[in-house]
Amino acid sequence: MSDKLQKLTTLLAEIADVDNAMALLGWDQQTYMPKGGAEARGNQLATLSRIAHQKFTTEEIGTLLADLEGEFAGAEPDADVARLLEVTRHEFDRKIRVPADFVAEFALITSRAFEAWVKARAASDFSIFRPHLEKVVELNQRYITFFPPAEHPYDILLDQYERGMKTAEVKAIFADLRPRQLALLKEITARPQVDDSFLKGPFDEQQQWDFGVKVISAFGYDWDRGRQDKSAHPFTTNFSINDVRITTRFEADHPVASLFSTMHEAGHALYELGCSQFFERSPLAGGASLAVHESQSRLWENLVGRSLPFWEHFYPEYRRRFPAALGQVDLRTFYRGINRVEPSLIRVNADEATYNLHVMLRLELEIGMIEGSIPVRDLPGIWNAKMEEYLGITPPNDAMGVLQDVHWSGGSLGYFATYTLGNLISAQLWEKIHSDIPDLDDQLRQGSFAALLTWLREKIHCHGRKFKPQELVMKVTGTKIDPAPYIRYLTGKYSDIYEFQPK
Amino acid sequence: MSDKLQKLTTLLAEIADVDNAMALLGWDQQTYMPKGGAEARGNQLATLSRIAHQKFTTEEIGTLLADLEGEFAGAEPDADVARLLEVTRHEFDRKIRVPADFVAEFALITSRAFEAWVKARAASDFSIFRPHLEKVVELNQRYITFFPPAEHPYDILLDQYERGMKTAEVKAIFADLRPRQLALLKEITARPQVDDSFLKGPFDEQQQWDFGVKVISAFGYDWDRGRQDKSAHPFTTNFSINDVRITTRFEADHPVASLFSTMHEAGHALYELGCSQFFERSPLAGGASLAVHESQSRLWENLVGRSLPFWEHFYPEYRRRFPAALGQVDLRTFYRGINRVEPSLIRVNADEATYNLHVMLRLELEIGMIEGSIPVRDLPGIWNAKMEEYLGITPPNDAMGVLQDVHWSGGSLGYFATYTLGNLISAQLWEKIHSDIPDLDDQLRQGSFAALLTWLREKIHCHGRKFKPQELVMKVTGTKIDPAPYIRYLTGKYSDIYEFQPK
Repeated sequence: MSDKLQKLTTLLAEIADVDNAMALLGWDQQTYMPKGGAEARGNQLATLSRIAHQKFTTEEIGTLLADLEGEFAGAEPDADVARLLEVTRHEFDRKIRVPADFVAEFALITSRAFEAWVKARAASDFSIFRPHLEKVVELNQRYITFFPPAEHPYDILLDQYERGMKTAEVKAIFADLRPRQLALLKEITARPQVDDSFLKGPFDEQQQWDFGVKVISAFGYDWDRGRQDKSAHPFTTNFSINDVRITTRFEADHPVASLFSTMHEAGHALYELGCSQFFERSPLAGGASLAVHESQSRLWENLVGRSLPFWEHFYPEYRRRFPAALGQVDLRTFYRGINRVEPSLIRVNADEATYNLHVMLRLELEIGMIEGSIPVRDLPGIWNAKMEEYLGITPPNDAMGVLQDVHWSGGSLGYFATYTLGNLISAQLWEKIHSDIPDLDDQLRQGSFAALLTWLREKIHCHGRKFKPQELVMKVTGTKIDPAPYIRYLTGKYSDIYEFQPK
Repeated sequence: MSDKLQKLTTLLAEIADVDNAMALLGWDQQTYMPKGGAEARGNQLATLSRIAHQKFTTEEIGTLLADLEGEFAGAEPDADVARLLEVTRHEFDRKIRVPADFVAEFALITSRAFEAWVKARAASDFSIFRPHLEKVVELNQRYITFFPPAEHPYDILLDQYERGMKTAEVKAIFADLRPRQLALLKEITARPQVDDSFLKGPFDEQQQWDFGVKVISAFGYDWDRGRQDKSAHPFTTNFSINDVRITTRFEADHPVASLFSTMHEAGHALYELGCSQFFERSPLAGGASLAVHESQSRLWENLVGRSLPFWEHFYPEYRRRFPAALGQVDLRTFYRGINRVEPSLIRVNADEATYNLHVMLRLELEIGMIEGSIPVRDLPGIWNAKMEEYLGITPPNDAMGVLQDVHWSGGSLGYFATYTLGNLISAQLWEKIHSDIPDLDDQLRQGSFAALLTWLREKIHCHGRKFKPQELVMKVTGTKIDPAPYIRYLTGKYSDIYEFQPK
């Protein structure tokens, strides 16, 4: 390795160490930290984020990058080193524009905002969170001003999560998707509703925990390189390719949600765990983008975890664990029940036919907040009105409405669209996987996930952040992000469950 | 506040943030980290310790310190600002001598050594730990070379934990203590042994946990500013004055150990929690020294937790929780049982009459390793021989011998003597507390610890690191560290328990 490349990778490794330490501070904040620790934690996150930022935006890194870009100008474009330089350049050009003090302020304010959100959600009182969210929006607007004007200001936020993606591109995909999704929803809701009364429990928490652990162990989650804890909002985080942790929560009024949440987060974790070990402590570690990440979590949660073949294997044991609730429920009734379509309040618990509508709502609100057309103080009212418009229901309180998601409290605007993009990618991958592994359903029926995981590792996981999201999707499936496979998947699934002839 | 003081405290606060983040990395490593995370954790600790060291040893801090020392030359010597400058100067002069790369290497090697120690202890195989300990000794010897020659090279290690203390001073105290302690031990062992067969259990773990939580809650441990977890070796750590955590462990062959360990760590935690809030994120936060820290943990563990008045209050409930083991055991029998004196293998479980002998052994080994007269490879043999010499017993394996303590794996040499110094201080304080609070025993009999905690907060805790250990002991008790009160305490206690007339 050239001296300069050695020097650059050493510097980047130290930045990764600081980033990973920050991730642990965040994990602890959401899992075990006593409330007295909150203020100090905010300071710690602010200081470390300032340090990471300063270490990344030095003249030394700028010079090394420029020199190495010259040195490796003729390299194979897909070579690791070429991609390392490209990803690092992208990060560098983005970070160099943002003052270190802003980064520290952002960390401090969002740490406080997170604490406020926890309180606000518990009290179902938006007014506790409102001043913090106002600051978060103002910070995001200020962030945008550090960059040259984009086609749309929101592009700059989106680019943080979805490298190269434009607001117009997302809007076009959503515009294509929405009428098809609404048409399908109409077909479904015209049919007699399926029964899911048995899912109300009681479901013993320990049994839920144990079953979830068993399922994700079967998926291939490596407990020597990860763990599961509880938190208010489930998440996946990592401090290394070899320490990737997930969290889950138990909801009294939605007892099976924990299981699907566990599978979802395990999907994220399997992605991180599958990254090439060569990328440890480098900017190439991680996932291609949030949408590609979400394609992995949704694939394991929905395309595997809510499928009939999966439950053909696991249902006998699941029923044994919850005999009071499920003793009289046969497999098909159970399968239809967990796939019941019904407009509902909470995004993370939404069925596959309505989920994307929750995302579309959030995208519109975010764009409105960033454009300044939606003031934060009006958010609960607008949220509720849009819920009524899109889904025909109104949240009874803020906890089940505007306060349900953690993202804004962490400062993240530009994030939500990636959930829907991830759904679309998951179905694109699923079609490709089925063509590469024709007997996949039989394997799932036997509780065997090894071939599936191997495929994902080889095609997606091992590449880490090497490729842009659209580039990776194209490379693996032959097309860019496309709603058609997702609609095909939903139509096939729900025409069986709701027993109608698809149009 | 002067601009320069403001600037210095801001810089010091950022260093405290990095130190606190490192403490969390360490806490997680010992509590929840999956083993796959170990290598990355070592890198993270190395990088953060290098950053903290670099941030402390800048020319900017050197200049600010010198300027402020001039500015505050006439300040009241005990004023916070004067002491802040003194403590910072001490740290600065110590750290400026040590290269940042050494600090990072130290963090990396000790992180690996900790992992090796965990494995070695589990396998009871010193050879797994030996190469790591050799590196640790070599690192400590190298550390000493960064300083001007001291009276004894070990002074430089001791000073890290016990500001201003000399090896000769410790040796003199130990030389005074040892014959008196041995004479007392002889008197005790000449008497019929007390029964503690009922302490073998079974003691339900959850009941132990719950009772421990109840006791330290009564002590005044604030769960909004701390928590308790499990770890291989119990410890206290903090990331803020308002986030001070303890750990405990359960030992099958020593079921009540967990309770005393919990009280011990709570004693450390109460000290940190009682520090003046003004010292948050400053070098004045924390304790005066490890010995003073240990005086707090031992005071709560032994002078309170192994006392008759304490158990007059708590024993009825304790007995109710463990009816199979204790149903037939009356209070005095129980009290004598938990204070049974018997030469034993494990320091942390040793009774008060033999504990200091364990410490003296370690001090001699450490001095030998540092002087080079004891090679690491000979350590298990020498350990076992000295155990036979001092306590008349030989460890059956390394796990119960040379591998029992975590300290060396963390790179800490110079630490062990502080345990005995802490014991001595605890008894000095106890005499003073009894003269200031004459009805203390009655209060303990009622399970009331408020007056005791208030006294400790006012006399010791609130000062944080302002005073040197000998200075603080002198300030509070009127004398320097002195073995006499400890011997008086032990003699009074054991002449009652073993029913002999003290000489």
